[in-house]
Amino acid sequence: MTDPGRTAILRAARKAFARQPYNAVTLRGIAGDAGVSAALIVKHFGSKESLFEQVADFSEAAELLLTAPDQELGRHAVLTLVNYRRDNNQDLLVRVIFAAGSGDERALIREHFRDQVTRAVALRLTGPDAELRAGLITAQLLGLGAAMALDKTGPIATATPEAIANLYAPPIQTLIY
Amino acid sequence: MTDPGRTAILRAARKAFARQPYNAVTLRGIAGDAGVSAALIVKHFGSKESLFEQVADFSEAAELLLTAPDQELGRHAVLTLVNYRRDNNQDLLVRVIFAAGSGDERALIREHFRDQVTRAVALRLTGPDAELRAGLITAQLLGLGAAMALDKTGPIATATPEAIANLYAPPIQTLIY
Repeated sequence: MTDPGRTAILRAARKAFARQPYNAVTLRGIAGDAGVSAALIVKHFGSKESLFEQVADFSEAAELLLTAPDQELGRHAVLTLVNYRRDNNQDLLVRVIFAAGSGDERALIREHFRDQVTRAVALRLTGPDAELRAGLITAQLLGLGAAMALDKTGPIATATPEAIANLYAPPIQTLIY
Repeated sequence: MTDPGRTAILRAARKAFARQPYNAVTLRGIAGDAGVSAALIVKHFGSKESLFEQVADFSEAAELLLTAPDQELGRHAVLTLVNYRRDNNQDLLVRVIFAAGSGDERALIREHFRDQVTRAVALRLTGPDAELRAGLITAQLLGLGAAMALDKTGPIATATPEAIANLYAPPIQTLIY
């Protein structure tokens, strides 16, 4: 199971690195936000640099979201996104949105997202306009993540994962070919 | 046509109010970010309070996005979102994502978004689960906005609005009934 201290550190680190320049981020600040000691961060992640590498990495997210046969990919991705949000109170992808804007570190987060998520989707597509469709499939997943982050008590928050997938997966699936 | 100074002020104000607590936002800071004088902000918007009201208001966005017959709503919304982004270098909706998190002002931005956008979509829907579908349609629009904000040179940025609508509008339209 996930270590709660580790999860809190990662959540605080994702927020810090996505919103501030790399040089302005401190382990002390992340520790304060996560409610843990800086020593615990060092124990789990080593250095600020290796913690940043975890934040900028979407390979685990991509593996979780995309490990399904093509004809079930939309449904699998939606269920994974919803269940991950509910089990961990965070989103697999949405932190990239906060990395819009200037700064080398933000650019690196966006670049990893493009390489590890959007490009991985594109490689699954064989029809025309694969790159554009991959961008739009990713947009649908980002949108669901953002909507869940914004509305903690509304219709999306209270629907079953299956009810959400029944409505949101077919639209995604129309772009998978 | 849109006044460039006014547009720059609104863009800077949207960023400032979505990311900082209300009390931390200053007209001077917004003016600096927009590259105008604080006096020009006062000329255009009066006070900090009335500038905030503009930022928290999505009624114009909702009107632009939703003024179309039901059977053309998906395509109209996508074309409007893409063209608005390209004409104004900003997004009609996506600032609400940056208002996730705590703070009364952020909560007000999210509340206005829910009332003015998501609820306005729900009122157009007559079938079952209208509120959930409205939330998911809004999610699709937010996702497109976020994807455009993130990727300024990729496949979405270089596709024609029509090519994007051809792919992205039918998925939205499947949720409109």
